[in-house]
Amino acid sequence: MKKAMVYIQSGGPTAVINSSLYGAIIEARKHPDLIGDIYGSIHGIEGLLNDDLIDLNKEEEKTIKLLKQTPGAALGSTRYKLPKDFHSEEHMRILNTLKKHNIGYVFINGGNDSMDTAYKISLLCEEKKYDCKVIGVPKTVDNDLALTDHSLGFGSAAKHIINTVQSIIIDARSYRKSKIMVVEAMGRNCGWLAASVALLPDHLKPDLLYLPEQDFSTEQFLKDVDRIYKEKGNVVAIVSEGLVFERDLSKAFVDSFNHVELSGVASELASLIREELGYPTRNIELSLPQRANPILISKVDQEEAIACGKIAVQYALQGLSGIMVCIRRLSSDPYHVDYFPGDVGEIANAVKAIPESMISNDEKLMDKSFIEYCLPLVLGHVDIEYLDGVYQAAVLKKVRVK
Amino acid sequence: MKKAMVYIQSGGPTAVINSSLYGAIIEARKHPDLIGDIYGSIHGIEGLLNDDLIDLNKEEEKTIKLLKQTPGAALGSTRYKLPKDFHSEEHMRILNTLKKHNIGYVFINGGNDSMDTAYKISLLCEEKKYDCKVIGVPKTVDNDLALTDHSLGFGSAAKHIINTVQSIIIDARSYRKSKIMVVEAMGRNCGWLAASVALLPDHLKPDLLYLPEQDFSTEQFLKDVDRIYKEKGNVVAIVSEGLVFERDLSKAFVDSFNHVELSGVASELASLIREELGYPTRNIELSLPQRANPILISKVDQEEAIACGKIAVQYALQGLSGIMVCIRRLSSDPYHVDYFPGDVGEIANAVKAIPESMISNDEKLMDKSFIEYCLPLVLGHVDIEYLDGVYQAAVLKKVRVK
Repeated sequence: MKKAMVYIQSGGPTAVINSSLYGAIIEARKHPDLIGDIYGSIHGIEGLLNDDLIDLNKEEEKTIKLLKQTPGAALGSTRYKLPKDFHSEEHMRILNTLKKHNIGYVFINGGNDSMDTAYKISLLCEEKKYDCKVIGVPKTVDNDLALTDHSLGFGSAAKHIINTVQSIIIDARSYRKSKIMVVEAMGRNCGWLAASVALLPDHLKPDLLYLPEQDFSTEQFLKDVDRIYKEKGNVVAIVSEGLVFERDLSKAFVDSFNHVELSGVASELASLIREELGYPTRNIELSLPQRANPILISKVDQEEAIACGKIAVQYALQGLSGIMVCIRRLSSDPYHVDYFPGDVGEIANAVKAIPESMISNDEKLMDKSFIEYCLPLVLGHVDIEYLDGVYQAAVLKKVRVK
Repeated sequence: MKKAMVYIQSGGPTAVINSSLYGAIIEARKHPDLIGDIYGSIHGIEGLLNDDLIDLNKEEEKTIKLLKQTPGAALGSTRYKLPKDFHSEEHMRILNTLKKHNIGYVFINGGNDSMDTAYKISLLCEEKKYDCKVIGVPKTVDNDLALTDHSLGFGSAAKHIINTVQSIIIDARSYRKSKIMVVEAMGRNCGWLAASVALLPDHLKPDLLYLPEQDFSTEQFLKDVDRIYKEKGNVVAIVSEGLVFERDLSKAFVDSFNHVELSGVASELASLIREELGYPTRNIELSLPQRANPILISKVDQEEAIACGKIAVQYALQGLSGIMVCIRRLSSDPYHVDYFPGDVGEIANAVKAIPESMISNDEKLMDKSFIEYCLPLVLGHVDIEYLDGVYQAAVLKKVRVK
C-alpha cells in the first residue's frame, strides 16, 4: 500500500548532510508503487510538531542535484528537544501529523540526540499500532555515534581540518619567531576531529595535540609550549573543543539540550600562555567552516552519505524500524565497507570515544591504527560547481503541504 | 656582464606569494647570459643582513613547480624593520652581502613596509655607486598598495572569504533562531577583504558589513543587530580587522613595526551584543587561513603573481631600479590588464583605501563599481595536487651559499 515518507534533518549540519537527503530522494523515486509523496520536515522535528511539511517532488532537478554540494540543513534544522516521556502532548501532535498525511516512513538524519528522537517515535508508533517505519541516518562531524564504524560528515570535516591546519603551520613557520598558535577543532565529547591532524605528513604535523580522552595538565602544557618555543621559535597546538581542564564554566552559555557551550578552549589556553609565559599567541577556532565547507568534501564521505540515504529507504521498505543505517568496515586498505541496521535504542545518547589503543603521545601524535582508520575517510576529490568564484548552493522552493 | 640575483619575501604571506617566486625563477633561467646565480634570502631582509642566502638552482624541479600551490613564505619571511637612516650599520651589512656575492638584482616581494625597504636599498646602491637593480613585487591580501590596480594575494584571499562566509551564512540560516555571527576579515587599514562579501549572490549576502573607511556607531550597530535578529532569527555581520571604534587598546600587543595587533574586533563586538542585547553570539575570525589557503587560489591571482615575478626580472634586465611592478586595469569585462613600473618611493608606506564611490549602505552592501572591480580578481579555478587528502606543499632544501 502506497504511503508518504518524510525526511528530517536534525542537529548540527555537516558538509554532506544534504547528500543523504539526495540519496533518499533518488531511492524513494525508484519505488513509486510503495512511496507516494516525498515530504521534508521544516526545521527538524518541529515540522512534524507543527504540521509544517514541504513537497520535495516540487523541487527542480537542478536543485536536487546541487544538494550534494550544499552545506547547512537544506530543510532547516533544530535543537529543539522533545519531552522525555513519549506519551507527551508533543508526541501526540507528531502522531497526528503522521496520520494526517498518511506517512508510513520517517527518516531522521542526525546525531545522538536525534537517534533518541527516532527511538521514541518508533516506540510511539508501535504502541499506538500506527504502521510507520522510523529509520535513522548517521550524521555528526564529531564521529561519536555508537555501533557505526564512523559517522557521515566526519571525513569531510577532517579533510577541511587537515588542509586548514597545514596552511596555518606553513604560514606560522614562515617566521623565525611567530606567535604561538592554539587551534581549536570541534568535538564536544571526543577528540576524533582534533586527532585527524595526525594525518598530516611528519614534517608538517602540529607540535602538540590535546584530546578530551586524555588527562590534561596545565603545568605540563605550559612546560611543553615553553620548551618547543625556545627550541623552534614557533608552536602550533591543536585542542579539542571538549578538552577538560580547570576553567570557570559559571558564565558559559547553556543551550536547550542542557549542553554547555564549550567553545573558547583555544582562547583560554592562549590567554594562559600569554599570562604565564609572556609569549605572543593567536587562537584560531576552526568554527563553523569545518563542518560547513563543501569545497573539500571527501569523495568517500559523500558517496557513503548518499548510500546511507538510499539504504535507509530500502530498510524502511523491507519493514525495518527503530534502526539506524550503520557502516561496518571490512577493510582499511583497500578500503571497503558494507551497511547494517543498528538498534537506535543502543545508539541514542551513547558516545563513542577514541579507543586508548589509537592514542599515542609521540611525535606522530596518534597510533598507526588511528591513521589506518582515519585516512580512507578523507580521500577522493569531488568536483564542485562554481558561479562567479563562489560554489553554487541549492535553495529549496519549499512548497508547503496542505 | 653576468650578475647574481637575490629574491626576498617579506611581511605576511599570501596564497600566491610563492607563485611570484616561481615566475621570477622561470624568467631568470631564460637569461643565463645576464643572470648567473639565483639566490633566495632567508627570512626576508635578514638573509642579506646576515649573509644567509640559499641557492635556488639546487632545488628540484618538482619543488619549484609546487611553489605555485604552497602558502607561507617558502624562503621565510620577517617583520624585522631596518633603521630609518639608510646609512645605518645594517644597511652597510646589506651592501657588503650584495658585493660579496656579486648580486646585481634584488627582488623584494612584499607590502608597504617592504617597498620602503626596497626604496632605501635602491637609494643606498645609487649613492654608493654599486650597480644593483632593486625591484618590488606587490603582495598583500589587504590590497592597500598604492599605484597598482590591485595587489597579488588579494583575489585568492577574497575567494576564500566569500566561499567561507557563504558556508557560515548557509549553516546559520539552517536554524529558525541561531547565534548572531560576527565574522572578522583581515585588513589593517582598509576594508577591501571584508567588502569582498558583496560578491555573494543577493540571497546569500551577509546582513551587515563594517569597513574602516566608514564611521562606526556602536549604538546604530546594536540597533541594526536587534532589528534584524527580531525579524529573521539570525544575523551575520562582517567586520574588518581595522574597524575603528571605542575600545580599550591599552592591553593590545604591539609588534616590532609599531603596529598595534588589532585582532579581536569580532570578539569585542560579539561581547557587546551579548552584554547589551542578551543574544547568543559566535565570533569567527577568518584568521590565517584566509591568506594561507591554497585550495581556493584564484586563477587570475595566480597567473598575475607569476607574471609579476617574470616582469620584475625583465624590468631589472632593462636597467630599471627603485620601482615596483604595478598592474593597470584596461577593462573589467572582459578583464584585461597590463603592467607598468611604479616608483617605490610613492608606494612605500602609502595606503590605498576603498574609494567612497565604491561604498554603499544598501542591502547590496557595496556599489556596483566595487563588484565590477572585485569580481574578475576571484575568478578561475586552479587544479591542486593532493596526497592522502591534503594538498602537497613545496619544501625547499635550502642549500646555503658560502
